[in-house]
Amino acid sequence: MSIALGDNQYGKAETRVVRIYRDTERHEIRDLNVSTALRGDFAAAHLDGDQAQVLPTDTQKNTAFAYAKEHGAGAIEDYALALARHFTDDIASVTRARVDVDEYRWERISVNGSGHPHAFVRSGQEIRSAAAVIDAGGPVKAQWVVSGIRDVVLLKSTGSQFTGFLRDRYTTLAEASDRILATSLTARWRYATADVAWDEAFAQVRSILLERFAVPHSRALQQTLWDMGSAVLAARDDIAEIRLSAPNKHHFLADLSPYGLGNPGEVFHADDRPYGLIQCAAVRDGAPDAGPAWELPASFA
Amino acid sequence: MSIALGDNQYGKAETRVVRIYRDTERHEIRDLNVSTALRGDFAAAHLDGDQAQVLPTDTQKNTAFAYAKEHGAGAIEDYALALARHFTDDIASVTRARVDVDEYRWERISVNGSGHPHAFVRSGQEIRSAAAVIDAGGPVKAQWVVSGIRDVVLLKSTGSQFTGFLRDRYTTLAEASDRILATSLTARWRYATADVAWDEAFAQVRSILLERFAVPHSRALQQTLWDMGSAVLAARDDIAEIRLSAPNKHHFLADLSPYGLGNPGEVFHADDRPYGLIQCAAVRDGAPDAGPAWELPASFA
Amino acid sequence: MSIALGDNQYGKAETRVVRIYRDTERHEIRDLNVSTALRGDFAAAHLDGDQAQVLPTDTQKNTAFAYAKEHGAGAIEDYALALARHFTDDIASVTRARVDVDEYRWERISVNGSGHPHAFVRSGQEIRSAAAVIDAGGPVKAQWVVSGIRDVVLLKSTGSQFTGFLRDRYTTLAEASDRILATSLTARWRYATADVAWDEAFAQVRSILLERFAVPHSRALQQTLWDMGSAVLAARDDIAEIRLSAPNKHHFLADLSPYGLGNPGEVFHADDRPYGLIQCAAVRDGAPDAGPAWELPASFA
Amino acid sequence: MSIALGDNQYGKAETRVVRIYRDTERHEIRDLNVSTALRGDFAAAHLDGDQAQVLPTDTQKNTAFAYAKEHGAGAIEDYALALARHFTDDIASVTRARVDVDEYRWERISVNGSGHPHAFVRSGQEIRSAAAVIDAGGPVKAQWVVSGIRDVVLLKSTGSQFTGFLRDRYTTLAEASDRILATSLTARWRYATADVAWDEAFAQVRSILLERFAVPHSRALQQTLWDMGSAVLAARDDIAEIRLSAPNKHHFLADLSPYGLGNPGEVFHADDRPYGLIQCAAVRDGAPDAGPAWELPASFA
Repeated sequence: MSIALGDNQYGKAETRVVRIYRDTERHEIRDLNVSTALRGDFAAAHLDGDQAQVLPTDTQKNTAFAYAKEHGAGAIEDYALALARHFTDDIASVTRARVDVDEYRWERISVNGSGHPHAFVRSGQEIRSAAAVIDAGGPVKAQWVVSGIRDVVLLKSTGSQFTGFLRDRYTTLAEASDRILATSLTARWRYATADVAWDEAFAQVRSILLERFAVPHSRALQQTLWDMGSAVLAARDDIAEIRLSAPNKHHFLADLSPYGLGNPGEVFHADDRPYGLIQCAAVRDGAPDAGPAWELPASFA
Repeated sequence: MSIALGDNQYGKAETRVVRIYRDTERHEIRDLNVSTALRGDFAAAHLDGDQAQVLPTDTQKNTAFAYAKEHGAGAIEDYALALARHFTDDIASVTRARVDVDEYRWERISVNGSGHPHAFVRSGQEIRSAAAVIDAGGPVKAQWVVSGIRDVVLLKSTGSQFTGFLRDRYTTLAEASDRILATSLTARWRYATADVAWDEAFAQVRSILLERFAVPHSRALQQTLWDMGSAVLAARDDIAEIRLSAPNKHHFLADLSPYGLGNPGEVFHADDRPYGLIQCAAVRDGAPDAGPAWELPASFA
Repeated sequence: MSIALGDNQYGKAETRVVRIYRDTERHEIRDLNVSTALRGDFAAAHLDGDQAQVLPTDTQKNTAFAYAKEHGAGAIEDYALALARHFTDDIASVTRARVDVDEYRWERISVNGSGHPHAFVRSGQEIRSAAAVIDAGGPVKAQWVVSGIRDVVLLKSTGSQFTGFLRDRYTTLAEASDRILATSLTARWRYATADVAWDEAFAQVRSILLERFAVPHSRALQQTLWDMGSAVLAARDDIAEIRLSAPNKHHFLADLSPYGLGNPGEVFHADDRPYGLIQCAAVRDGAPDAGPAWELPASFA
Repeated sequence: MSIALGDNQYGKAETRVVRIYRDTERHEIRDLNVSTALRGDFAAAHLDGDQAQVLPTDTQKNTAFAYAKEHGAGAIEDYALALARHFTDDIASVTRARVDVDEYRWERISVNGSGHPHAFVRSGQEIRSAAAVIDAGGPVKAQWVVSGIRDVVLLKSTGSQFTGFLRDRYTTLAEASDRILATSLTARWRYATADVAWDEAFAQVRSILLERFAVPHSRALQQTLWDMGSAVLAARDDIAEIRLSAPNKHHFLADLSPYGLGNPGEVFHADDRPYGLIQCAAVRDGAPDAGPAWELPASFA
């Protein structure tokens, strides 16, 4: 049996682009981590070491910086689309380009009650992301935009239970009618179109996710995730699918009884590992095909 | 348009199981990080919060510890298969189980020239992995075994070039006829069968990967990866596919000329970010279908 | 020459204590990482393996949880002092106790414009810290309280220069009359007293540090740090000393000229390593002695 | 009361220098992480923003690369000393220089049973370190050399107990007559002289540390650390002091009794946090003063 080249792609990962807008004295900042991945006619590079069709990853990095000047003004979704279009339109050997952008958020330092024009402090650990994938390899050019958020650490101190579960020989867990529910949420959602007001959409999705985590009583993290995801799709017709991944960050009630102390849901041990990992998607019926939208480079091997 | 529950799975991630074999005075150790992920009939948990079909992740953790006693003796591939079989065979609501196991390696502390019977030191940063996926949801039960290695940091100080590449408006890179080539390799390979001497196979694959990195002259990391991967398939008929992911850990020649010093390939700056990221697969023609073998929980969203 | 036991201490590090206040429907949360370190008459444990005077680290962990119930209500400085007092007062073999507490901050999830009573989202990556050291080994009992903050990521996009520096044979750096100045600040300040409104003091110090980073023109990070630190001491008589450590997170102007683009301070590459590291202290004349206040367990060896 | 500038230092941290020796076809590699920190007459930089006496951190980085060419051949202790001497001898404003160097170790890739001349694989996670401090501020120039090792992960599966410890109100720990003892060792030792065969000394110290962890029965980690440290001083007259820091990486016996399984020391849960932290020093009587040898930049604030 013969051996063939299978899936392959290459690119430049984690180019750290910082863009300052200084047209007025009130500067703006966009702080980005950009990764590009190209697919196409690269068999010769693998099989023969022939680079004639290979645009260097160094060039991809240069392009990320150049585009931050030429096209950097908008939301990260637009910037990712512009880069993906460039690689598929202008480089003949490229049939598919994927551009992933993380954005770190800053807020103005408050001085005497108002935001300083050019001094900033990082606001939070949450990371906004966007991915654009353009495939020019088929009869029609296709594109996908996926936006996301991660490292959103959430906790509710009541309003969560876990009862009535399946038991087998190895089950020792007690039922919990009132527990802490905590997670570090990753959510990514795929748009059905690229005609979106990206920043407003992001803010709305984030707001819905947090509200639906907070408000309904939770009978399990599964239920809560589904409620969060389906609410996003209900609110925005332009989102075709949302995928959520949520570690169950366990908080165990400390046993204070040996010291004669009660502990009615007050003192907990926040454990690191292991953790439950709950993952689900909400999908709109009749949504356009996901194609390669969910194939992150990080999961190649 | 209505909204439906899409892909979903849940499990317990990163259970840290350490198994000591102490049947003789010469102890053995297996040090594992175990993650389980179940799919099946879990719509009620999402839609209604009904846990009647949900085996708790706490139980999955317990089972990992119990199986380390009951079935722990063999290679991690066998342990992963045993756990996956248990979940699909014994839990009615489970149609597919995936078990991922990382193994940390230890060597005996040398005392007066021989290995101590019960004292160990961690040997290296490389992590051996195994994944078993069993799908009982179709007409025939199917299974996949994927073994892997990661964090294998490799460097060759010559025997690597990068020349003749495509140039565009944004290309500034100089051709390099002699450079450092360095990476931190991730490789995973899928077996066509579960009838394998796992430990010997792992050792052989690791040895081939390193030798093929070392020996042939490299005209690009693409060529080197393909050469490494195809050599593995050529050597072992029982491997259907191998996937490789390799950051190009750039080493830039330090410019010492301002101080009147030459630098003929001697002093380099090892840079962190950005990095090239080269990924490819080698596949055997007619290999059985990969099914869900490559779908890591980490890439769900 | 004989060999003697030198400095020694032991304790429990990184106990993750979460305290929920649920006396009303509007819950409060304190999320802590607690480390204790004890010194005293522990020579027998080292020299003979005799544990008779050794309070187990497991007990220290238990005490951290119990005190979160019994004494947990106040600022982390008070909680740290209470624990340190307990160890030195109640355990005969302990002559000095050090308690370090990190606090992770949460804010309420906003629902319909108001904060939810029991659902929270982690607010930012900044970590507030407190350390209490009590030494009962001398003729008079002594105590020190050090508060701090770290992971405060700051950036100003103008108002910073670096010119007129010393040049030697190895100097190639160009003068910069307008550059990005960015850092991830660590600051710790030592109080001259324990009679402090800790939460208000923390808020004031943080505010001063940020304002003094933002406002004055910076001729070097050294000048900026001194200005930040000395302003804190000028504002609060109860602080004896402040120590600041600040990596210079370099942002290099991207060279876009090969593509015919200008770059007047707009597009930067945020580099990871190496980084400048600038450290200074501001001290009040006649301040009480620092004693062991600055000796972090992390710097023992 | 007036406010004064206190301790201050600055430098370039984590310059990643890779030095290849290619004088013959059998290349050698040294892979270093270099940090420099200078003290001296830098008050004007802080108080007035005057850089006239400030050698830029960029120059310090350049010097690290240049010295890897000019002086890089020996052990990292010699390289650190050479850099420290340069800064104190050649830069008038510098009174004290500290140079910290970490070294990452590589081994040759084995090809047909012998080591390849120019292809390497990272060998292990252990990091060798060296620090040189030279103080030219006093009447006589003084110097200190500290070598070290860290991330040495050790485990013994028997031969460890913890019994007879102090109990108080909060003590719940059971006595353990046979347990797993595991740690990730950090050790640093200060030489009494700079006339040392550094590589041989390092190998001997590492070997002693591991052997003394392995062989004697342990009644507590305190006893084991003391035994390890004092054995190093007993073996080498040129070492004045050694400091050890060792987290107690707890391995808890899994309770398998609910499933009808025994567990006679076979299956353990390796927990992450919290961990005991045991630290001690062994010091030679009459050893020269430690001066600033132990003051790591990482512990400044």
